[in-house]
Amino acid sequence: MREFILFSRGVTREFKLNDLPNAGRMDLIARCISTAIFLSYSLRKDVKFHVVLNGPPSPPLTVTFYTNELKNVSPDERNVASHINIAIKNFSVGRKNSEPGIYIEKKSFERLIKEKIEEYGSSNIFYLYKNGEDIRNVKMKSDSVFILGDNKGIPKKEEDFLSRNKIKMVSLGEIEYLTSQVIAIVNYEMDRRGL
Amino acid sequence: MREFILFSRGVTREFKLNDLPNAGRMDLIARCISTAIFLSYSLRKDVKFHVVLNGPPSPPLTVTFYTNELKNVSPDERNVASHINIAIKNFSVGRKNSEPGIYIEKKSFERLIKEKIEEYGSSNIFYLYKNGEDIRNVKMKSDSVFILGDNKGIPKKEEDFLSRNKIKMVSLGEIEYLTSQVIAIVNYEMDRRGL
Repeated sequence: MREFILFSRGVTREFKLNDLPNAGRMDLIARCISTAIFLSYSLRKDVKFHVVLNGPPSPPLTVTFYTNELKNVSPDERNVASHINIAIKNFSVGRKNSEPGIYIEKKSFERLIKEKIEEYGSSNIFYLYKNGEDIRNVKMKSDSVFILGDNKGIPKKEEDFLSRNKIKMVSLGEIEYLTSQVIAIVNYEMDRRGL
Repeated sequence: MREFILFSRGVTREFKLNDLPNAGRMDLIARCISTAIFLSYSLRKDVKFHVVLNGPPSPPLTVTFYTNELKNVSPDERNVASHINIAIKNFSVGRKNSEPGIYIEKKSFERLIKEKIEEYGSSNIFYLYKNGEDIRNVKMKSDSVFILGDNKGIPKKEEDFLSRNKIKMVSLGEIEYLTSQVIAIVNYEMDRRGL
């Protein structure tokens, strides 16, 4: 399984689809999910995308898109965001899985990472960071987890947590890309290795 | 200059920002532009993105985003699409440059390609196509033009035109990516070479 974990400031309430940027950069979040899960005319197989919403009013919430079960999702930001909205709405009445392949939980970034360390081992988890080791020199397996920050990055406290847990920092070179571009490139680097 | 040319079915009239997919996949177009021109917290320098709109009612129109002049554009699809809408609206009253760095003309895909061949020479123009030569084996200069199709691809007539003009076909491997993902990867491959 290829997994992505996005630390975001996305809001934890329903939001307006006409103004995604002001919902804690829900546009960025939706763009990242779309980039991670879609190929031309198909969904990737065996991909899980987790976005941790740390915005108001009741953070954290973790929303997971699992491609092997997903239905009726389109690549445009508005559509992807609408599914997050549905998940948040249903969670407020206690439902954790209101659409196929989309899950929502009261779960923090750190708890999610801990679970992934147990599942994959910390050597298969990578934090995409400009000063990390060049991805082209890093050994990876098909079972890999990639951690990313939104436009504001991952806070010091959470970065220290990653460091304490020996999560390797991996870089795509000297240029700082949009998070969605990072995801496209990571998928490409993995695809190139046949992973 | 790094240039992109997207053959699209985007509509040539004003469209609703709440339904980009039904405006000839204006979501795809906006996502491609955003991916091509943005980096984290900045615009790339020296990038031109041309989208040829071949949808109804009065095709073709070519809209160009030139990063060295652009202002007030955000990476979300809705924002990028809103600038295309403004360009189309102003073109209907004869204005070809209503916002900084955004141009619109009555120009066809073939005419645009011919201009680029005169400007760069056909050996510096590349058509991204699954059965082309692996991009990692293709020599490129910083002055390069990349041609892409939307979700439906480039029609036979236009493909034949590219072939007659000796435009090289270049591939990213065996996987068929979304056009926006292709753009992220092409930029990355160019960046990696320091171009």
